[in-house]
Amino acid sequence: MVALPVIIGLDALQSRYQVVSLVQETCGLAAGYKVGLPSLLRIPGIGREVRKACDEALVIADLKLADIADTMVRVAEITSGWADAVIAHAFPGYEGALDGLSRFLEENRQKLVVVVAMSNPGASETMDPILEKLVGIAKRARAWGLVAPATRPHVIARARNLFTEAVILSPGVGAQGARPGEAVRAGADYEIIGRLITTSRDPAATLQSLAPSYKGRHV
Amino acid sequence: MVALPVIIGLDALQSRYQVVSLVQETCGLAAGYKVGLPSLLRIPGIGREVRKACDEALVIADLKLADIADTMVRVAEITSGWADAVIAHAFPGYEGALDGLSRFLEENRQKLVVVVAMSNPGASETMDPILEKLVGIAKRARAWGLVAPATRPHVIARARNLFTEAVILSPGVGAQGARPGEAVRAGADYEIIGRLITTSRDPAATLQSLAPSYKGRHV
Repeated sequence: MVALPVIIGLDALQSRYQVVSLVQETCGLAAGYKVGLPSLLRIPGIGREVRKACDEALVIADLKLADIADTMVRVAEITSGWADAVIAHAFPGYEGALDGLSRFLEENRQKLVVVVAMSNPGASETMDPILEKLVGIAKRARAWGLVAPATRPHVIARARNLFTEAVILSPGVGAQGARPGEAVRAGADYEIIGRLITTSRDPAATLQSLAPSYKGRHV
Repeated sequence: MVALPVIIGLDALQSRYQVVSLVQETCGLAAGYKVGLPSLLRIPGIGREVRKACDEALVIADLKLADIADTMVRVAEITSGWADAVIAHAFPGYEGALDGLSRFLEENRQKLVVVVAMSNPGASETMDPILEKLVGIAKRARAWGLVAPATRPHVIARARNLFTEAVILSPGVGAQGARPGEAVRAGADYEIIGRLITTSRDPAATLQSLAPSYKGRHV
């Protein structure tokens, strides 16, 4: 596969047709797709359709789960038919939260991706001061990946040092301010890009135009 | 209304029929209903049906939102047709998160309920040490309510002291360990009860049997 290290966030798209078309047009060019709560609530069954529209892609259920284990597992059961990976927050902790979710995902051969930092300014006051603790929780939950913001590259670098084996996914590229390529240079493995691609008149061309930002880096 | 200060969590129910029946049977006996992510993903349109099945109840969309403002507003747009209140986490912070959600909900005359503490043991390591900060974020976002766990009554009492005007909703009653009435005695306004009622063969009778725990307290 010669896809760019980009995961396309689909949540700004309004209809089933728009989502499926975009995935078909960009299949093979992006490493994966992130299907979030707005899409899942607005378009029932859209997760399976994304899966079907691009079989080779990494498909991520981005519900930013932040609940007790029991509730998170119930949600993961619903997305297990189509999601390769599930995003949950580190904040609710390990015991009674990520412990149960992690066990369920392992049994279902799905990947756990844990949010340890966010791209908005407010999160820097609450989450950044306890980054080590949050990464520790992700490690304890045997996370495959971490989410850390492209808007604060030093946080990516810190997360990378704290958990070297983890795959780092970085949102915040494009509409939120970070430039394509910045997060990967700071140590991220994938950049999550939404509106920059989904609002483009030619998403495949826009995606291809980003290749130089990744200096030919493919996944 | 002579309902108990109980909000029924519906997420353990599997089918549309079960949810609607339970709401019809308990309408008027409970103060409200909490519709969470498992129900919303599994049963498309269930929010509106709960609303329709008991017009007088407080209906809460419990998505435990924990994302940037833009994404949370997109979700709130979808639930605005049926939810009186929306639950979001405090830990993503104010700027770029709860600021936008709060503004949107105010414009739509919906209530914001903010999670400042959770019932599982893991959360006591991450959230309890910054309870003051989290309640401060909820205050700044002009939250109508706070979520604090019935399993740790001293956290309810602290939240109550930090934000006297807020309505406090307490999960963790029944299956998670707290006894009905404990959270209300610690300062909560509503207790959120799920499985204890939803797995009962006669939910209305089970609910009525709880009345003495609230010492005749009604809402």
